[in-house]
Amino acid sequence: MIRKEKLEELKKYIEELKTIKVESRIVDNSKKWIQSEPANYYLNNGLVIPRERLVKGKNDGSAAIIMPVLKNNEILTIIEPRVFTDLTVGIGFPAGYIEKGEEPIVGAKRELMEETGYYPKEIFELDSFYQDEGCSSALNHLFLATNCQKVGEQKLDENEIIRYMTFTYEELLELENLNYIKGVNSKMALVKAKKYMR
Amino acid sequence: MIRKEKLEELKKYIEELKTIKVESRIVDNSKKWIQSEPANYYLNNGLVIPRERLVKGKNDGSAAIIMPVLKNNEILTIIEPRVFTDLTVGIGFPAGYIEKGEEPIVGAKRELMEETGYYPKEIFELDSFYQDEGCSSALNHLFLATNCQKVGEQKLDENEIIRYMTFTYEELLELENLNYIKGVNSKMALVKAKKYMR
Repeated sequence: MIRKEKLEELKKYIEELKTIKVESRIVDNSKKWIQSEPANYYLNNGLVIPRERLVKGKNDGSAAIIMPVLKNNEILTIIEPRVFTDLTVGIGFPAGYIEKGEEPIVGAKRELMEETGYYPKEIFELDSFYQDEGCSSALNHLFLATNCQKVGEQKLDENEIIRYMTFTYEELLELENLNYIKGVNSKMALVKAKKYMR
Repeated sequence: MIRKEKLEELKKYIEELKTIKVESRIVDNSKKWIQSEPANYYLNNGLVIPRERLVKGKNDGSAAIIMPVLKNNEILTIIEPRVFTDLTVGIGFPAGYIEKGEEPIVGAKRELMEETGYYPKEIFELDSFYQDEGCSSALNHLFLATNCQKVGEQKLDENEIIRYMTFTYEELLELENLNYIKGVNSKMALVKAKKYMR
């Protein structure tokens, strides 16, 4: 069972980061970050089907997700605004978009450093998967990092706000059951890392 | 081990449905299916962060995914064009967008019927998760359906092409290892259904 004080600390961060008001903005379509590229796809059987490909910024939105295990076997877990979810705050693992030409493993270590200031001794890929294969080529890469140590400070992008805490693997499963962990990337990380946890 | 003839049948469908040519289309931005809604989100700590919410059609793209188990314990598996992936064809489970006001479980049964003509005797929810929590409110619902039986014909939307085959749970895990099953919804279904498989 997760300790009451730990759950209270998590709830304090959730309270701090929750959305209390939304105000729509008018933005020229061509200046939006989310775009799509419509095309006709010719299949080998002679059929032609129209599809739209999701574009985020100038890339396809492929992401690296990293589950960072510390020397004491606790797992570094981040808390950040997820304004479109019921809770409006997300609990999960460091993750971010892979930059153009960047190796996924390099992106994973970069995101971990930027979001937490931690760096791993060992890191390896657990799995990769298409996030939304019907309308996107985004291929997400999932990493497990071990013996992570604090080596610097957070370096967040503008408009990025990230708090972090550590939990045991069992506590994270409990947080998933309590619906605090609800994003598919973090859920996949919990599943695919299971055999390496003790 | 998956039988050679079964793998050959799967490869025949993949060959039939693969993309051989792409031709971009010019579409007025306002007529695209993929859109976004930019807004400023006010957090409880006083910060204001801009975000864009992904919109598909007029909805948020929440989907129902259904893993259909037949009386013989084989699992109905669909093969369809997934033009943005490396293989250009996806292998997975019936799934589709939940319609406005529709209960997820109703959407799951509807998609199963439309895509395969099968209907389940029992169905229950395995899990739900945010598909892309950074920029979307899409909450996907995952169902396990048992004792499914063929009761009608496929009723596909225009531009929807779906073949299906049956596999045992172990064969599906093998197909996942061989990278034929690569979409996150189908991977989550395989994981979350595990304890109900024998």
